[in-house]
Amino acid sequence: MATLDLSAHLKEAKKHGPQARGISDMARSLVGSEILRIAGEVKAFAAQGNKVLDLTVGDFSSKEFPIPQPLEEGIIRALKAGHSNYPPASGVIECREAVRQMFERRLGLGYPVGSVLIAGGARPMIAGIYYALCSPGDKVVYSLPSWNNNHYCTLVGAEKIEVPTRPESQFFPRAEDLAPHLGQARLLCLNSPQNPTGTVIDRDALSQVCELVLAENKRRQQAGSPPLYLMYDQVYWMLTFGGVTHHTPVSLYPEMAAYTIFVDGISKAFASTGLRVGWAVGPTDVIERMSAILTHLGAWAPRPEQIATAELLNNGPAVDSYLAQMNRNLFTRLGKLSGAIEALKGKGWNVDCISPQGAIYLSLKIDLRGKKTAEGKLLRSDEDTRKYLLEEAGIALVPFLCFGLAEDTGWFRASVGAVSLADCDSFQARLTGALEKLS
Amino acid sequence: MATLDLSAHLKEAKKHGPQARGISDMARSLVGSEILRIAGEVKAFAAQGNKVLDLTVGDFSSKEFPIPQPLEEGIIRALKAGHSNYPPASGVIECREAVRQMFERRLGLGYPVGSVLIAGGARPMIAGIYYALCSPGDKVVYSLPSWNNNHYCTLVGAEKIEVPTRPESQFFPRAEDLAPHLGQARLLCLNSPQNPTGTVIDRDALSQVCELVLAENKRRQQAGSPPLYLMYDQVYWMLTFGGVTHHTPVSLYPEMAAYTIFVDGISKAFASTGLRVGWAVGPTDVIERMSAILTHLGAWAPRPEQIATAELLNNGPAVDSYLAQMNRNLFTRLGKLSGAIEALKGKGWNVDCISPQGAIYLSLKIDLRGKKTAEGKLLRSDEDTRKYLLEEAGIALVPFLCFGLAEDTGWFRASVGAVSLADCDSFQARLTGALEKLS
Repeated sequence: MATLDLSAHLKEAKKHGPQARGISDMARSLVGSEILRIAGEVKAFAAQGNKVLDLTVGDFSSKEFPIPQPLEEGIIRALKAGHSNYPPASGVIECREAVRQMFERRLGLGYPVGSVLIAGGARPMIAGIYYALCSPGDKVVYSLPSWNNNHYCTLVGAEKIEVPTRPESQFFPRAEDLAPHLGQARLLCLNSPQNPTGTVIDRDALSQVCELVLAENKRRQQAGSPPLYLMYDQVYWMLTFGGVTHHTPVSLYPEMAAYTIFVDGISKAFASTGLRVGWAVGPTDVIERMSAILTHLGAWAPRPEQIATAELLNNGPAVDSYLAQMNRNLFTRLGKLSGAIEALKGKGWNVDCISPQGAIYLSLKIDLRGKKTAEGKLLRSDEDTRKYLLEEAGIALVPFLCFGLAEDTGWFRASVGAVSLADCDSFQARLTGALEKLS
Repeated sequence: MATLDLSAHLKEAKKHGPQARGISDMARSLVGSEILRIAGEVKAFAAQGNKVLDLTVGDFSSKEFPIPQPLEEGIIRALKAGHSNYPPASGVIECREAVRQMFERRLGLGYPVGSVLIAGGARPMIAGIYYALCSPGDKVVYSLPSWNNNHYCTLVGAEKIEVPTRPESQFFPRAEDLAPHLGQARLLCLNSPQNPTGTVIDRDALSQVCELVLAENKRRQQAGSPPLYLMYDQVYWMLTFGGVTHHTPVSLYPEMAAYTIFVDGISKAFASTGLRVGWAVGPTDVIERMSAILTHLGAWAPRPEQIATAELLNNGPAVDSYLAQMNRNLFTRLGKLSGAIEALKGKGWNVDCISPQGAIYLSLKIDLRGKKTAEGKLLRSDEDTRKYLLEEAGIALVPFLCFGLAEDTGWFRASVGAVSLADCDSFQARLTGALEKLS
């Protein structure tokens, strides 16, 4: 059979712009990922032979953070047992039941199994919540910096209400920041432990948010209008350290169960981003709609991975020992970065950080605006700082600008999921060297 | 930790209807699956101790149709090698390249690798095409019976243009049926081999459709308006038999490459519905938008499965020998059903079928309307027939009504993916027994 070379036809098509090509309004409004742009730059810099301490990757290296052995063995066993056909639309019942029990055991929350939905990771759950609850023009409230809520608003045509936060509140919104915006909103989004900041919302702050939501919904119930929901993305919740505790809206106020949808999964806690198993837990009516939508999207978790996830979650001691090691390894890495920052801060540099609390991230402030490089170039922005650190120190960071903040703040996200302990050890010397070249 | 019993809060919430609960307009318009309703009924009937020949399941039994051994081994190897982290947004490059080469080798189509997108099955690809191309109100044309295009129209708010077909054209649309509807359409959907009919579109019929699309796009190019696209869902294309050949729009007319998006995957050809690996192949600008959308939906294929799929597709002899056996097993099963129908037709019963051509399905006509059961009940509809066959013959079928047809035709889908050869052997006796009780 002769092969048809299609390149001319495809090239001709691509010459026309997206509108002329009939790309949908929504698809044309989606903006590209700034993080991917930076990742491409880091890759190109490394390809030139530069050794880079790459703290941009919101993922794990499987060499540094392998998945739990029982999870790997469970997948292999399930495959060999013939678990190759469709899972039920809401997930394999054993997996839903394992999540239900885990919520009961580890969070003290007694949900029915109908409240648990399994799908292909945490992202499908976020998409499912937006599609199930938000009609075009509905308002969605979230704080900045934020991971991807802007894109989900574009997907469903919701109106974004973005609330900037400050390091003083660990980059979480305070009740008084949110209060003016909840009156007309359909959905409020919280993520704790938070990407990109690595911070955990404390009990008081979360309580105050819940009180706002409950007061608003009391008002709406009297007015006969539909409720305000809270998406509580806790996909990093098993990764906490430094003495902080993860709280949930529903454990603080059980009546929040009617309005809260949890987003969760194995992706982060068990370093399994590529295995595509996540879950949502919430009121059954919302969960059923999400299930119907995700069925059409086909965003299901693979069946062997579902079976193995059920076995892992049911194996309390295996989970505990894995998480103990995971958290130790993360805390040590993050501590090396924060230790270096504290040391440099002590020497008078305009740097800062928030002590490690959770997830795989650290909020770092490295504010070099106003400094001059050895070549006499004035650093004017966080983007200038980012480039200087990459080229002069071989340190790759993502500025909070990439997470929706409109203004320079000097704050960056450092992720340690894909770096070794030795890599982290090099942070202080790299950074010090680059700082000392400035004037 | 005391467990909070949340059932009262959830029950109170569920008392309110979907509108009062703020379920989105789109989620409220999604209709439930008729097939799932029937599956539930079949399950309940079997649970009463009845032995059912269940021909409703559009999936495989892994006992009857295990996945290829090299695929299973490849997943295990990839897992052990640490492929547990995020795949790239467009898919692991080895998998994209393997699909590219497979299209070149087996279909004679020379695409660049940028035309290939990997995601979590064929469904995400269909959703991705709809989201990338259809704005609310855009028109989508597809024939009936059809698998799920109605739901995808609901997801994106597109206007459905449904074109009924007849057994004389193997339940494919003829050019003259489509021609009046293409003028304003954004997307035309074809699926061959077709679910639910098990038929394969022939070369002439497909050529005529392509000629319509090309003529329409020539007109649009001159008018400066965006093109009409063709979604060509060929997820069953490796499963053909009985002397039929699978053709593609792009092999018939290379200029169709600018307007055709292929939907495909391992789900059906390799009995791997639960492993969640599919691909789309098409013009790079559309593929790039689909990739951005599916990234936010998180509908990615698991990484070990992607690595193993690449290895399988690169292993031509393994694919060939697996497919040979697969097709033999399907053809034998389908042949037993069609043979029984032919025999009963010869005896004067109002039954018919289309000889097995592809996929795991057979189009069966069993028209019992106007007959009376032994209990004196008049069968008035396909739904009456379906229930009679279930209860009297223990044969479970899905009427074409469930695939969008508005009127009774006497035609049903029989699926053999989840039944044994011995099960199929029982078909003739079961059906004959039930027919002979009628008057």
